[in-house]
Amino acid sequence: MFRHTQRLQFDAKPEKPDPVLARKLQELVGGAYGEMTVSMQYLFQGWNCRVKGKYKDLIMDIATEEIGHVEMLATMVARLLEGAPNTETTKVAVSDPAVGAVMGGMDPQQAIIAGGAALPSDSNGYPWNGRYAVASGNLLADFYANVAAEAQSRLQAARIYNMTDDPGVKDMLKFNLARDTYHQNLWLAAIEQLREDNLEDVVVPGTLTDEEHREHAASLWHLSDGDAAAAGLWASGPTPDGDHEFTVLSDPEPLGEKASPPPPDPKLFATYDGSYGEPKSPALGTEVGLKGKIRGALSPDE
Amino acid sequence: MFRHTQRLQFDAKPEKPDPVLARKLQELVGGAYGEMTVSMQYLFQGWNCRVKGKYKDLIMDIATEEIGHVEMLATMVARLLEGAPNTETTKVAVSDPAVGAVMGGMDPQQAIIAGGAALPSDSNGYPWNGRYAVASGNLLADFYANVAAEAQSRLQAARIYNMTDDPGVKDMLKFNLARDTYHQNLWLAAIEQLREDNLEDVVVPGTLTDEEHREHAASLWHLSDGDAAAAGLWASGPTPDGDHEFTVLSDPEPLGEKASPPPPDPKLFATYDGSYGEPKSPALGTEVGLKGKIRGALSPDE
Amino acid sequence: MFRHTQRLQFDAKPEKPDPVLARKLQELVGGAYGEMTVSMQYLFQGWNCRVKGKYKDLIMDIATEEIGHVEMLATMVARLLEGAPNTETTKVAVSDPAVGAVMGGMDPQQAIIAGGAALPSDSNGYPWNGRYAVASGNLLADFYANVAAEAQSRLQAARIYNMTDDPGVKDMLKFNLARDTYHQNLWLAAIEQLREDNLEDVVVPGTLTDEEHREHAASLWHLSDGDAAAAGLWASGPTPDGDHEFTVLSDPEPLGEKASPPPPDPKLFATYDGSYGEPKSPALGTEVGLKGKIRGALSPDE
Amino acid sequence: MFRHTQRLQFDAKPEKPDPVLARKLQELVGGAYGEMTVSMQYLFQGWNCRVKGKYKDLIMDIATEEIGHVEMLATMVARLLEGAPNTETTKVAVSDPAVGAVMGGMDPQQAIIAGGAALPSDSNGYPWNGRYAVASGNLLADFYANVAAEAQSRLQAARIYNMTDDPGVKDMLKFNLARDTYHQNLWLAAIEQLREDNLEDVVVPGTLTDEEHREHAASLWHLSDGDAAAAGLWASGPTPDGDHEFTVLSDPEPLGEKASPPPPDPKLFATYDGSYGEPKSPALGTEVGLKGKIRGALSPDE
Amino acid sequence: MFRHTQRLQFDAKPEKPDPVLARKLQELVGGAYGEMTVSMQYLFQGWNCRVKGKYKDLIMDIATEEIGHVEMLATMVARLLEGAPNTETTKVAVSDPAVGAVMGGMDPQQAIIAGGAALPSDSNGYPWNGRYAVASGNLLADFYANVAAEAQSRLQAARIYNMTDDPGVKDMLKFNLARDTYHQNLWLAAIEQLREDNLEDVVVPGTLTDEEHREHAASLWHLSDGDAAAAGLWASGPTPDGDHEFTVLSDPEPLGEKASPPPPDPKLFATYDGSYGEPKSPALGTEVGLKGKIRGALSPDE
Amino acid sequence: MFRHTQRLQFDAKPEKPDPVLARKLQELVGGAYGEMTVSMQYLFQGWNCRVKGKYKDLIMDIATEEIGHVEMLATMVARLLEGAPNTETTKVAVSDPAVGAVMGGMDPQQAIIAGGAALPSDSNGYPWNGRYAVASGNLLADFYANVAAEAQSRLQAARIYNMTDDPGVKDMLKFNLARDTYHQNLWLAAIEQLREDNLEDVVVPGTLTDEEHREHAASLWHLSDGDAAAAGLWASGPTPDGDHEFTVLSDPEPLGEKASPPPPDPKLFATYDGSYGEPKSPALGTEVGLKGKIRGALSPDE
Repeated sequence: MFRHTQRLQFDAKPEKPDPVLARKLQELVGGAYGEMTVSMQYLFQGWNCRVKGKYKDLIMDIATEEIGHVEMLATMVARLLEGAPNTETTKVAVSDPAVGAVMGGMDPQQAIIAGGAALPSDSNGYPWNGRYAVASGNLLADFYANVAAEAQSRLQAARIYNMTDDPGVKDMLKFNLARDTYHQNLWLAAIEQLREDNLEDVVVPGTLTDEEHREHAASLWHLSDGDAAAAGLWASGPTPDGDHEFTVLSDPEPLGEKASPPPPDPKLFATYDGSYGEPKSPALGTEVGLKGKIRGALSPDE
Repeated sequence: MFRHTQRLQFDAKPEKPDPVLARKLQELVGGAYGEMTVSMQYLFQGWNCRVKGKYKDLIMDIATEEIGHVEMLATMVARLLEGAPNTETTKVAVSDPAVGAVMGGMDPQQAIIAGGAALPSDSNGYPWNGRYAVASGNLLADFYANVAAEAQSRLQAARIYNMTDDPGVKDMLKFNLARDTYHQNLWLAAIEQLREDNLEDVVVPGTLTDEEHREHAASLWHLSDGDAAAAGLWASGPTPDGDHEFTVLSDPEPLGEKASPPPPDPKLFATYDGSYGEPKSPALGTEVGLKGKIRGALSPDE
Repeated sequence: MFRHTQRLQFDAKPEKPDPVLARKLQELVGGAYGEMTVSMQYLFQGWNCRVKGKYKDLIMDIATEEIGHVEMLATMVARLLEGAPNTETTKVAVSDPAVGAVMGGMDPQQAIIAGGAALPSDSNGYPWNGRYAVASGNLLADFYANVAAEAQSRLQAARIYNMTDDPGVKDMLKFNLARDTYHQNLWLAAIEQLREDNLEDVVVPGTLTDEEHREHAASLWHLSDGDAAAAGLWASGPTPDGDHEFTVLSDPEPLGEKASPPPPDPKLFATYDGSYGEPKSPALGTEVGLKGKIRGALSPDE
Repeated sequence: MFRHTQRLQFDAKPEKPDPVLARKLQELVGGAYGEMTVSMQYLFQGWNCRVKGKYKDLIMDIATEEIGHVEMLATMVARLLEGAPNTETTKVAVSDPAVGAVMGGMDPQQAIIAGGAALPSDSNGYPWNGRYAVASGNLLADFYANVAAEAQSRLQAARIYNMTDDPGVKDMLKFNLARDTYHQNLWLAAIEQLREDNLEDVVVPGTLTDEEHREHAASLWHLSDGDAAAAGLWASGPTPDGDHEFTVLSDPEPLGEKASPPPPDPKLFATYDGSYGEPKSPALGTEVGLKGKIRGALSPDE
Repeated sequence: MFRHTQRLQFDAKPEKPDPVLARKLQELVGGAYGEMTVSMQYLFQGWNCRVKGKYKDLIMDIATEEIGHVEMLATMVARLLEGAPNTETTKVAVSDPAVGAVMGGMDPQQAIIAGGAALPSDSNGYPWNGRYAVASGNLLADFYANVAAEAQSRLQAARIYNMTDDPGVKDMLKFNLARDTYHQNLWLAAIEQLREDNLEDVVVPGTLTDEEHREHAASLWHLSDGDAAAAGLWASGPTPDGDHEFTVLSDPEPLGEKASPPPPDPKLFATYDGSYGEPKSPALGTEVGLKGKIRGALSPDE
Repeated sequence: MFRHTQRLQFDAKPEKPDPVLARKLQELVGGAYGEMTVSMQYLFQGWNCRVKGKYKDLIMDIATEEIGHVEMLATMVARLLEGAPNTETTKVAVSDPAVGAVMGGMDPQQAIIAGGAALPSDSNGYPWNGRYAVASGNLLADFYANVAAEAQSRLQAARIYNMTDDPGVKDMLKFNLARDTYHQNLWLAAIEQLREDNLEDVVVPGTLTDEEHREHAASLWHLSDGDAAAAGLWASGPTPDGDHEFTVLSDPEPLGEKASPPPPDPKLFATYDGSYGEPKSPALGTEVGLKGKIRGALSPDE
């Protein structure tokens, strides 16, 4: 259960309105690596966490913080839209280049839909969606995803930081940048912790490493004609998991046969000339129908 | 420019059809962490790579390989759908539990749309989309994303590996698992290489670290009531980037003021009682209109 | 079955082209509360209506009208795009601020995809989709949704009304605004009619009111620190359905236990330390397998 | 800023796992009228609220509660998936009708992506998206939308309530149903409060009522051949806003001219035979270019 | 403007309910090539048609018919859901294989959202969206798209025709199949008519044929290793537009230089080692700023 | 399996940067008819092709070429963004109309997400998705779709060709236009080839032509009041498939009964007054339950 204070985690006060910047900040609200993503990602990870104690507690701390970041950004966006030329006509834009410059760069939906406020969308007006939030139950996989998310997030914040001179916006972004720095360091430390606790190692998931085709687990298939890749750390020496030696297949040949689909089900009307043989009748991965099953049930030893 | 051989990178021959598994494998074709994602992600990263030589060459090698993985999976899916009960009526399903078991778990669009073949969609029929592919131009940010993608990908392949007994499918998945192992190791090595080459460090992007509010760059805000998080590597000691000491804010208070939007533009008809004061007229981040600009242009020293 | 006349329900003749306004009007064509939504919403409600006579007839009257509104808006959009700077080059925009002001605010797809016409998309180019249309079969639930849709729709039309001085556009919007006024009144009257006819009451659905946990059916959980909410009509006195007295829980405590997921299925490779106990084997809501069922079938009294 | 306790608002303990029900409950998590929608809808409404005091405080109370509902549902879903046949092969499903019945009705992504937990998606695996959340800044429009959302939400919860016999699930749903009852009553009371406070009236927005074409603001256009609609409360008598008398246009004729697009821009290659006349050259809603503007700037009286 | 009769264009009466088939028919309602697509596609084409008379009239005739097809299908879907096991619990499904077979194959949203009726979605529950509808203003391009849409549509109807034995459903599908036959013939005839009327020819658009690089307008680039393609009608002889001779480039070499991006803007923090040279400062396709423009305005001959 | 050379199929070198054009070109990268669509469409068609030899080989040749077109366009987009005003502040835009003109027309995500490069999205920032790619297994249906795709594609390229004066961009587009000309001719020739090979005829699929209601397979239902459609080639004379004579139903009457849904399942809480009779209990298309089936299994002759 959650509780809320109307005080913001950090101030969000622009010096002046700037509707063009208000549009760009939508990327940090509802973009693929915006605050809605990390808040939902961490919430679902926390609820899904199967290890009691410090991991779950940590994830829920950060998740709860991130909801407050959406709030902070949404407040900033609304303030940047104050008195903005949302309701100016094109005629005004055409006759005043300053208005024109701004109107072209605005998000019309911030005015038409939200009445001058933030939307759960990105800077091109595409709505946030649930496929952005990663929560697999495997903490190593998810912490890798968290490092990646915080890295893209800080990168985007840094880019937008350069697109404004407003001291109030920059002040808030300095807080966001700092938190993104912390969160990158934090998830990297959490990865280290998983290893110290012997819960996970380097490769996700820490299993099937002997079952997989080990001979293909460390070789670079050289399939593009740039030839400098053979010089990298990924091309020779031990692999980060310590389990292989990197190699290069400089002239790789396909290992499989020629690709072909099976003969088609004639009732699906694929164009067909019989070249792949007779279509099979339904085969469901078993030969036994109901009768077979009943028989089997009555004679379980078969 | 690309070239193609009809031979598969690795074999994709199931022992028997299995349309339920064919649906699940759609996740590896067109899911958020399927082969379409990594192929498009690496292609766009390669085309966007601003460092000549080994990084770009490496990315293009792997990108080119991944297109072949989509091909391998798509071929496997079609073969698993051979002779499947796509065209059976519900009446048959109802009277034969074996058919019923399979029909419920099938993807109807593999039959109705594709005629018994793979779709560019995930295991719930949701189409692959471009927001899945990450290519920021910052190699460290993108390599973190690549590790994360390969980790989720191998995890999903491993889960599906446990959902089948078919030796042919398992053989192909052993190849996929091995490649995902390699690709995780590879991107981790590439991160190391970026550091060795002094192109990037630990935190993304490697800038604004002094400008950001450093006092907030290493502290855990304890906002959820589980209290074990203070015991982790993320709570004390040096940060992975070596630039901070982790701390815990055990009873954090908001630093900002009470959140409030500005007074609304009256032409947008927000419900308003005047409590936030008079709405401002348009303010575009500048006071100068056209006349001001012309004046400024003629008298640039003002 | 439908019939069509090429005459518009109302005129749609702008005085002058205005491609920036043409983009904004896309919100009324294909936005979440545009004409495509209400036409599809009412069509599916009408087809799904299980009460013969006046309700179904009413819904189909309005649904049929709304298709004509899409037509009216689409015609207006095309006319606003006449002779527009769709095919001007950036060079022209850069050298003529008037063109520049317009080009930035245009929807490029109206030119590139539609050749100067309306699209089934909103003002940010996001396509209309079927999740917008609500048709549940419960008329009270759907009429509430219809009031809400017409309210948002009239609000958006009113906002855009303020963004133009074109007398022709304003004339058409005066018709749209009037119809939205009527449709709000209409659906409110229809809600009243449902009550008069004793088909529905206030709360949707009109059932399970005794079965639900009545003690939680009228209390405000005070979870945010603003303390003025206790003064509203929702905080004390009888509820609109006459079935409860509003109360306030000013310091609410969670009623549930600490959230935790179950022990994970080991074959899904969640990170796990055993802290939630042994994973269960499959349990499908029943203990009987096939043998049990056959036994049960033969001995139905068990 | 938010705080969190790991205790759930209400218990979420099923008696037994039931993966088919776990899929259906996704509708209440991430569907168009699920808990993610109302939590995001209320959060954005609260942040966008331009009236200090009881309205904002109320919205934030409810918004904060709803995040906890997502948590409650997500926990329930994970528990319903315990020990589920996620990792069974099709072969098992085919040979055991009980497993087959369940596997067909499961959401494969709950296993493959989430490792046996809830997803931010609906019951068909379609991800939650930001277009679901309505927050216009007009409180009457938004409270109508809130009534509608809670009505659909309670309707869906009631439907799912009938799809299970599990006493634990039913117990939680009894809480959800009760809260949905309260929230419907609450938003209806809030609508009444807006009227008492003279902030809004019946029609949204409370403006332009004289400017719109009043003669079209109260008439039913009879466009479908069912003839019972003329008997309803929407067909005669005063309108709910008290501002009109309902009427019926029993044989309505179109008021507009024949629809036609303008002559096309020849550079966009529409098929054209000249029948609509000569295409116009660019006309931007103004005749003045840069020179005109400079002239105007220097001679502001023109 | 539209009018409606409640009589269906053709009967839609199944002999018996069949919820599995009801799900599959969603593909014909709201799939990429379902009736919603063609109705919206033809409506927008008709509204966008720049040729007066027979083309526009034809498109509007067919568009109006197609809305009635959505109605027919939606009615059929609701009837197939009559008395269906929507509200059965998993327990029943597990104990009765006949119920289990059906429940797995059902669309849960038809029950939970629509209360036993059709949805504006496809057979995997993905909502219809506006990107499916093609209306470019170029009639030849659009008629090609119409032939393609009707072809996919009849193919899908034919596939579903084979998935049912219900005489009522088959009767309706025989009507749909016939209309799809007519519509394919119709659009092919309309293509012929465009040529007879000298409005369009074979290639879309009928322009820039001399300006394009003609030497690349008729050659097959042989980039995949299957070598049978050189034997087709597309490899030699005159092209269908009569303007070229087909040829084969059997061993094609790239014509362009090595791909490389430009040096990055340093404020966007791409990883960069300087290997592509110094980043340029902003260059907007022009060298002139405001001063230049004012100068140009005053001295237009420069 | 694929291989790659870093050399582009054709040059992609603009004379100057132009970020507005870079946005428009996104339509050709990731729009519904952009290069991502045709590359994925042809790849899935090729993998799904059930006819050995020239058809499959052809499709794979073209598919492989199209991946290279995505590369060419992506490279062009990055170059057009060189030194662009991505990181300028609104203040600069407002004070320099040339910058303002450009900033309004830019795609902010090309800077914020991609760091100055192409995205897998269209010109309104909507991501490419898998529903765009058509691959049905029926070659005639798919070749019709391919003609349509190449026609829309060339049309869009031609429109953009007119939006730039840059000789480098125009040079690349001349290549694209030529390839689109070839591909239209090619797929038209391939349709001819299918007929020569007696694999398909005119209507898709080439079946059920006698089973469908032939009396409805050639008649124009005149449902819109424009009356010129009766004069077209689609209104009289033989149909293109030679199997019918076109006719016109000038005053068509519906053939079906009044549309009505069945009585609703009471547990789904549709509003209902009993007017459609008693709801049926579950009827699954069969009367036999498990006992019936076991009985049938033991006594197969019944």
